[in-house]
Amino acid sequence: MACNEYDSNITENKNEQNNLTAVLYGIRDLRLEQRPILEPGLNEVLLSIQCVGICGSDVHYLVHGSIGNFVVQKPMVIGHEASGVVVKLGKGVKNLSVGDRVAIEPGVSCRMCQFCKSGKYNLCPDMKFCATPPVDGNLTRYYVHAADFCYKLPKHMTLEEGALLEPLSVGVHACKRGGVKVGCSVLILGAGPIGLVTLATAKAMGASKIFITDLIEFRLNVAKKMGAFKVIKVNRDDSDEKAIENIRTEMNNELPDVTIDCSGFQQTIKMGIELTKSGGVLTIVGMGASHNVELPLFNALSREVDIRGVFRYANDYQDALSLIDSCQVDLKPLITHHFKIEESLEAFCTAETGKGDPIKVMIHCNREL
Amino acid sequence: MACNEYDSNITENKNEQNNLTAVLYGIRDLRLEQRPILEPGLNEVLLSIQCVGICGSDVHYLVHGSIGNFVVQKPMVIGHEASGVVVKLGKGVKNLSVGDRVAIEPGVSCRMCQFCKSGKYNLCPDMKFCATPPVDGNLTRYYVHAADFCYKLPKHMTLEEGALLEPLSVGVHACKRGGVKVGCSVLILGAGPIGLVTLATAKAMGASKIFITDLIEFRLNVAKKMGAFKVIKVNRDDSDEKAIENIRTEMNNELPDVTIDCSGFQQTIKMGIELTKSGGVLTIVGMGASHNVELPLFNALSREVDIRGVFRYANDYQDALSLIDSCQVDLKPLITHHFKIEESLEAFCTAETGKGDPIKVMIHCNREL
Amino acid sequence: MACNEYDSNITENKNEQNNLTAVLYGIRDLRLEQRPILEPGLNEVLLSIQCVGICGSDVHYLVHGSIGNFVVQKPMVIGHEASGVVVKLGKGVKNLSVGDRVAIEPGVSCRMCQFCKSGKYNLCPDMKFCATPPVDGNLTRYYVHAADFCYKLPKHMTLEEGALLEPLSVGVHACKRGGVKVGCSVLILGAGPIGLVTLATAKAMGASKIFITDLIEFRLNVAKKMGAFKVIKVNRDDSDEKAIENIRTEMNNELPDVTIDCSGFQQTIKMGIELTKSGGVLTIVGMGASHNVELPLFNALSREVDIRGVFRYANDYQDALSLIDSCQVDLKPLITHHFKIEESLEAFCTAETGKGDPIKVMIHCNREL
Amino acid sequence: MACNEYDSNITENKNEQNNLTAVLYGIRDLRLEQRPILEPGLNEVLLSIQCVGICGSDVHYLVHGSIGNFVVQKPMVIGHEASGVVVKLGKGVKNLSVGDRVAIEPGVSCRMCQFCKSGKYNLCPDMKFCATPPVDGNLTRYYVHAADFCYKLPKHMTLEEGALLEPLSVGVHACKRGGVKVGCSVLILGAGPIGLVTLATAKAMGASKIFITDLIEFRLNVAKKMGAFKVIKVNRDDSDEKAIENIRTEMNNELPDVTIDCSGFQQTIKMGIELTKSGGVLTIVGMGASHNVELPLFNALSREVDIRGVFRYANDYQDALSLIDSCQVDLKPLITHHFKIEESLEAFCTAETGKGDPIKVMIHCNREL
Repeated sequence: MACNEYDSNITENKNEQNNLTAVLYGIRDLRLEQRPILEPGLNEVLLSIQCVGICGSDVHYLVHGSIGNFVVQKPMVIGHEASGVVVKLGKGVKNLSVGDRVAIEPGVSCRMCQFCKSGKYNLCPDMKFCATPPVDGNLTRYYVHAADFCYKLPKHMTLEEGALLEPLSVGVHACKRGGVKVGCSVLILGAGPIGLVTLATAKAMGASKIFITDLIEFRLNVAKKMGAFKVIKVNRDDSDEKAIENIRTEMNNELPDVTIDCSGFQQTIKMGIELTKSGGVLTIVGMGASHNVELPLFNALSREVDIRGVFRYANDYQDALSLIDSCQVDLKPLITHHFKIEESLEAFCTAETGKGDPIKVMIHCNREL
Repeated sequence: MACNEYDSNITENKNEQNNLTAVLYGIRDLRLEQRPILEPGLNEVLLSIQCVGICGSDVHYLVHGSIGNFVVQKPMVIGHEASGVVVKLGKGVKNLSVGDRVAIEPGVSCRMCQFCKSGKYNLCPDMKFCATPPVDGNLTRYYVHAADFCYKLPKHMTLEEGALLEPLSVGVHACKRGGVKVGCSVLILGAGPIGLVTLATAKAMGASKIFITDLIEFRLNVAKKMGAFKVIKVNRDDSDEKAIENIRTEMNNELPDVTIDCSGFQQTIKMGIELTKSGGVLTIVGMGASHNVELPLFNALSREVDIRGVFRYANDYQDALSLIDSCQVDLKPLITHHFKIEESLEAFCTAETGKGDPIKVMIHCNREL
Repeated sequence: MACNEYDSNITENKNEQNNLTAVLYGIRDLRLEQRPILEPGLNEVLLSIQCVGICGSDVHYLVHGSIGNFVVQKPMVIGHEASGVVVKLGKGVKNLSVGDRVAIEPGVSCRMCQFCKSGKYNLCPDMKFCATPPVDGNLTRYYVHAADFCYKLPKHMTLEEGALLEPLSVGVHACKRGGVKVGCSVLILGAGPIGLVTLATAKAMGASKIFITDLIEFRLNVAKKMGAFKVIKVNRDDSDEKAIENIRTEMNNELPDVTIDCSGFQQTIKMGIELTKSGGVLTIVGMGASHNVELPLFNALSREVDIRGVFRYANDYQDALSLIDSCQVDLKPLITHHFKIEESLEAFCTAETGKGDPIKVMIHCNREL
Repeated sequence: MACNEYDSNITENKNEQNNLTAVLYGIRDLRLEQRPILEPGLNEVLLSIQCVGICGSDVHYLVHGSIGNFVVQKPMVIGHEASGVVVKLGKGVKNLSVGDRVAIEPGVSCRMCQFCKSGKYNLCPDMKFCATPPVDGNLTRYYVHAADFCYKLPKHMTLEEGALLEPLSVGVHACKRGGVKVGCSVLILGAGPIGLVTLATAKAMGASKIFITDLIEFRLNVAKKMGAFKVIKVNRDDSDEKAIENIRTEMNNELPDVTIDCSGFQQTIKMGIELTKSGGVLTIVGMGASHNVELPLFNALSREVDIRGVFRYANDYQDALSLIDSCQVDLKPLITHHFKIEESLEAFCTAETGKGDPIKVMIHCNREL
């Protein structure tokens, strides 16, 4: 695929109110255009966005125009893995000051439903989540957000790390959902960005042995450097049975307490069921095709292997921040590519094509203040 | 089907050492024969078996000779829902006395593996479970069992109720696994014996509204009497979509916190996924065909609906006993048919054919001492 | 004590905008006066208050002017156990309509702190809680409240029951904190209103045997009627040792899994520690004197008996409502006395003096619309 | 104190059946004597003991002759922090082979009571625990133990580390009881051996910031090296208020989610209550005087700070082993002193007097086979 498949135009404005913004108009139609700078309302802050990572879901919207039931029906600002600097406080804000460097938790929930009140705000039906249609994202220069969903970064944390708190929070939520705890053995299926942050988190939570699989060699090398106990190369052409047998052998026939599938394919889910210890948990982060999947379900049921999904995160951002703050997790090696916001199309092209072996592609929107 | 399809012969012995026993020799080959009376070993007791309920799995072994990987390969005593009276104590027994009336938890675990030590002894790989091949069951007159897996019955509990603790423990375990708690709404799919004991348990645990479905009218009538908030008749010919829509409407479009599938069919599991509230739990008790099932898995994953199996029970027998002891659960209405052990074949025939609308068929092995 | 110790005056206004309100000006200085009727703001509703129960804490503020660090420093409307009818909707309200009968959860939390976001909003440091200084309560005729903290009552529930959801929510929270579950035995120390609602809740959650103690015979009689397994009279003059021995004997030397202290005296807490089963939980609802207490702590620690406090409730109101809605709990017998709002002083006098054996004193503020 | 206060005599036997054993006859009466070598029974193994660490409780028995209700009434072999090598298998043993190097979990529970069956075997009333009167310990050369309570050491783990699994398991149990998890801040009161293993465990479980206090400088230095976020020196002469204020200031006025008291003094428990975040947990490992303690209990109750004791451990040994196996915890720096079994009295003298700044004193019983 060539990058010029993306339709686009940049309408830049060199004056002070420059708010260059990446707006998705439809399939393969991402445009850079000026947008007005909004005023922060009650309990909100205006942020100068600094770093925005590109997520697989961003690419998916660009290429397919939808994910499941979420369809881009009108122009939508893309981007949701962001950090920024506070430039203006709305009324009522107490937790932040102008100049604070913050990571931005991209979903703002209703705060009033039973999910919000009981600590599961990720399931709030009225969630406004950046770059999930029709809500605008934050691949832009100036952006307004709820102050309490902004997390102040300690001095020694970079704004790039701030942006990475988004995928790391997915890893934290996945490990919590999986019940990863001290002494656990963990099998992670897939060593993409989510697989790798999950690996880092599981290790920091006390997992003893972490096995991780992938089809791609360089990802496994990164996993090895990040502390995987053993990396296992899977071959695309292996039958399910052969792949399962292979992984089982590599694990010395000791099934893991927790398996976390970060791929979302029917095959990996099937493998996850058969490869998890009785009484353990199979957590599935990757959301593959939305149609039916065929599974050896009774294998899981009769051994009380629980199957749990992961939908975004709730109460995980601060934990993700702590993991980096305390040096228990180092995600800098994941950032392989950098672009300016003006180069957003090229950045997306890199993320989509995988040219240059990207793990995380980072877009820089402003000089830090 | 006619009852005379069962091969059988009774070899009764009228002397004191009468230990008439129901032995499964193979498919549709259940024989009544004399067996020696064993001596209780260390920490064991010899029991005069009184009541034995017939479970669907017993019938399945009789008709098919196997369940999943468990195959009847040599003659096996059938029966595992039993109560009895202590007639002799082995060494070391402190918790029981001769004459005590007890319910018998039919699985004795190894007590040494990590599952046993961590409270999940139902997953013990060395479990000896009555009437799961090759372990003998207890549809017999005299039977030896580990004393600590015998539960003394309070005076006002009958030996029939003692035998019913076995299925009730499945209901207790299912409700615990489902996280049923005060204020929960619960949907139970299937109103057979397990569906009904699950209904009774869920109610006793504080579930507010319990919906229960079945194809068969008289089962739903029993469910209604046992306190179901609403019973929902399902039609065999309805499409999945229509069945789901129908149940959803009957629930006033409020999805339950917990769904417990007591059928084990692909269709009901699929319904369970779509009909459970986000953040809720789908617990599956019924173990259907062991091959693959096709499921709308991502519906569950993206709404964090957990899927959990139920394998027997662990630490549930005493709770089941308490529920009856405290009159929070009354299972007497479930016992619809009575037979003597000499009539075991007729009893199985009734359970298999459903003639006479049986719910629980009870076999009596001895006069109570 | 004579009722005329209370300083008071009633300034009633017979016109349409009658908003007679009970305002606490200081120790034993409760006045009935007209207050303006407020307009409901964003996501708020204006309520015509119907029933308000008197709580021990209300009486404590009246008699002592403070509870712990909370001191009445300026006139404060009293009352927090209330139900009402919606008379006007503020902007944004979707969950209620004019005419709805509702129970009012009296605390409105900030919705933004980590406690609020993680499901423990009862610990929110910015909580606005009715009749906890300096926040006004709702013993008044017209009152504005956050709509999402109002719970619509089903048709067959009375407004008096709606007001009782407040103490019942304490009982629900106490039982959840105590880990009451199916098959548990429970000891409740104190059979006042909180002890009794806790009894009702524990029973509905599947506790098998509930023991309850009190000094006062008529309370124990009510407890017996509400389903206590055994009521135990404690004598004021007994030594701690004798009281403990007495209760232990009444429990047949089987210590309960959960003890819930609804008194808050040093003596009962000490008893609670010694009388709880190893590995169990002692939950303490009653908040006694705020100074130090002397306890046999190592008895609890070495047997891993956990000690847990109860502070109000969070996510419990709907469960409390369900318990009454489903007829699992019937609190009508607790309402022993009725007064009009004009008779508030007399109502408080009854609650304080205990004359006429009151359990719950209910004040009626308006005719139901 | 001088070491010669200990009464003793060594009766060594130079033949093959040398089973030199340290036996406590009474207060300050520890004798080295020959004991017969026992045969391993069913599911047991005979071990050649290699390393035995001295625990504070061992010293306490030596100096006081009792701990709480446990009184040394007849000669008892001392020692319970041990590792060894399997020299003979009893019948039924499958998990071990002759020559295996193992860590020994010193308590063998009854396996039949409700505590054992539900995963809380540490609370088993029939527990046989090494060197808790009247059960013999394992500061000896040959010792028989239940095979399933022996944990095979990986090749790269030393037998000294194997012995340290005992105190480490206490740390693991304390952190689990405290609910330490990713992102938690933790305050540890006391930097003795248990405080230090708790620090190591909390860090490995993902705690972000760990604060630790002690009176003694060199202990704090070790804590710093082991990764404490901040070490806080407490002065013996400070008032409770001043000590609390000091620690609070050092923590930047942010109270920890979990406080773990490893001292067991009334003062530290009091500090623990006041210094723990609302909704958090105060876990108390140290068991001080068994008489009453005076506490600001309502401070804890009104903020829902749970108080939880720690009694030994259950299902923690394998996790402790994993922590060392995976290099997440390194306890070698804790071993400061080495003695031969023949020098046991000198070893105890060092542990008791603290001469030479010992942290963990290790006794070597045999050459490794």
